[in-house]
Amino acid sequence: MNFNQKLDAIISKNNSMVCVGLDSTKPSQFRFNKNIIDQTHDLVAAYKPNLAFYEVQGEKGWHDLKLTMNYLREHHPDIVTIADAKRGDIGSTNLAYAKAVFDDLGFDAITLHPYLGQESLQPFLNRKDKGCIILCHTSNPGSSEFQDLPLRGETPKSLYQLVAQNVVNSWNQNENCLLVVAATYPKVIAEIRKIAPEMTFLVPGIGAGLNSQKSGLIINSSRKIIFAKNPRKETELLKDNINKYR
Amino acid sequence: MNFNQKLDAIISKNNSMVCVGLDSTKPSQFRFNKNIIDQTHDLVAAYKPNLAFYEVQGEKGWHDLKLTMNYLREHHPDIVTIADAKRGDIGSTNLAYAKAVFDDLGFDAITLHPYLGQESLQPFLNRKDKGCIILCHTSNPGSSEFQDLPLRGETPKSLYQLVAQNVVNSWNQNENCLLVVAATYPKVIAEIRKIAPEMTFLVPGIGAGLNSQKSGLIINSSRKIIFAKNPRKETELLKDNINKYR
Repeated sequence: MNFNQKLDAIISKNNSMVCVGLDSTKPSQFRFNKNIIDQTHDLVAAYKPNLAFYEVQGEKGWHDLKLTMNYLREHHPDIVTIADAKRGDIGSTNLAYAKAVFDDLGFDAITLHPYLGQESLQPFLNRKDKGCIILCHTSNPGSSEFQDLPLRGETPKSLYQLVAQNVVNSWNQNENCLLVVAATYPKVIAEIRKIAPEMTFLVPGIGAGLNSQKSGLIINSSRKIIFAKNPRKETELLKDNINKYR
Repeated sequence: MNFNQKLDAIISKNNSMVCVGLDSTKPSQFRFNKNIIDQTHDLVAAYKPNLAFYEVQGEKGWHDLKLTMNYLREHHPDIVTIADAKRGDIGSTNLAYAKAVFDDLGFDAITLHPYLGQESLQPFLNRKDKGCIILCHTSNPGSSEFQDLPLRGETPKSLYQLVAQNVVNSWNQNENCLLVVAATYPKVIAEIRKIAPEMTFLVPGIGAGLNSQKSGLIINSSRKIIFAKNPRKETELLKDNINKYR
């Protein structure tokens, strides 16, 4: 089963496009995550730990990340796991990152920087069973500094559009690519959907623009869910809100 | 003492612009690194572990990275340490990465992706005492896919040139920015030097283009030094070869 098949299966089984960001630094991080997982596993499509919040705890953080992954694989092997690592180095180094994230930690997918180009990311892209989620247009206020740059020539107009186009036309040979597309800018998500009509988007943060999408989305929420009084209720609410538009 | 002062002092003290990439995965990584450090510490300006090679060893790798950093700070506190991490996330997440790399591990500098823009990297840029080494033009064969893209308008012509220009004009408020500039493409290093005449470049791999530089360089070599029969001799050779052009 490849990444997209696994994703489709869990979206269908749990009737949910929700991704929960496991981004707490509260010790023990494993116990914190286990509680969130136990409360929400039948309501989600994916869990997405951001590696920064584990690295900041040093060895203990890596240990808790590993325990979290072991727990997920043992108890909920059908739920998709995404390493929000935003990696991107030269090829020989990416080979080590791919081994760390896919083989040692056992993630199904990873988020990646496009700046070094397809050739550098080949160690990830070659993994037919794993998902490669490429940063295309991000949610932060300063995302336009480079991502919106107008390119010389006719189409595509902007850097983020060329990233999407290259991923669709060339990087996706193994049909294992996804794009990070923030919902912050509804026009942007519509533009990218035109270029990548059939590709799944990982959408950080909730926002406008969802109603133009019929499928191929995973919607992430982190702090709003994991720090809620009732994480299960909050997850259910998000799932139902998204499903209204499906 | 800020980052550039520390760098200038060690370049002057050891009469060397050499950076040694501590990129072995041979266990124990700490013992391996200690041996390299013991043999070369009076010949180098900086040590640069690439985090991928520690993450791939899991907790043990993080432990050995920490031991390496502790050893360097205790025995050679004047040598610059660079976390080759190529990080880049949204601001709140970068705050955790900065804490992990600068405060927990104790590095002097970190390599960073520009794709999310200055605003996202502010948690690194705000650290006046630390070096922020921004990926500008990389050494890999596929680097041109995005980095060389022609931009609409007059100047600068290409994406990598705009990255350099924005870093010089706006990101470098605390005078703590450097650029990653590969020596693979001599024309490229000359173009960036025009835009950033006074900024230090971290140059991965040895190549042409060095003789056009009078200062403001750190030249990295990893495998060629650390896996050499005689790492000290190899380091000395590189140092002397570089110094011919100074």
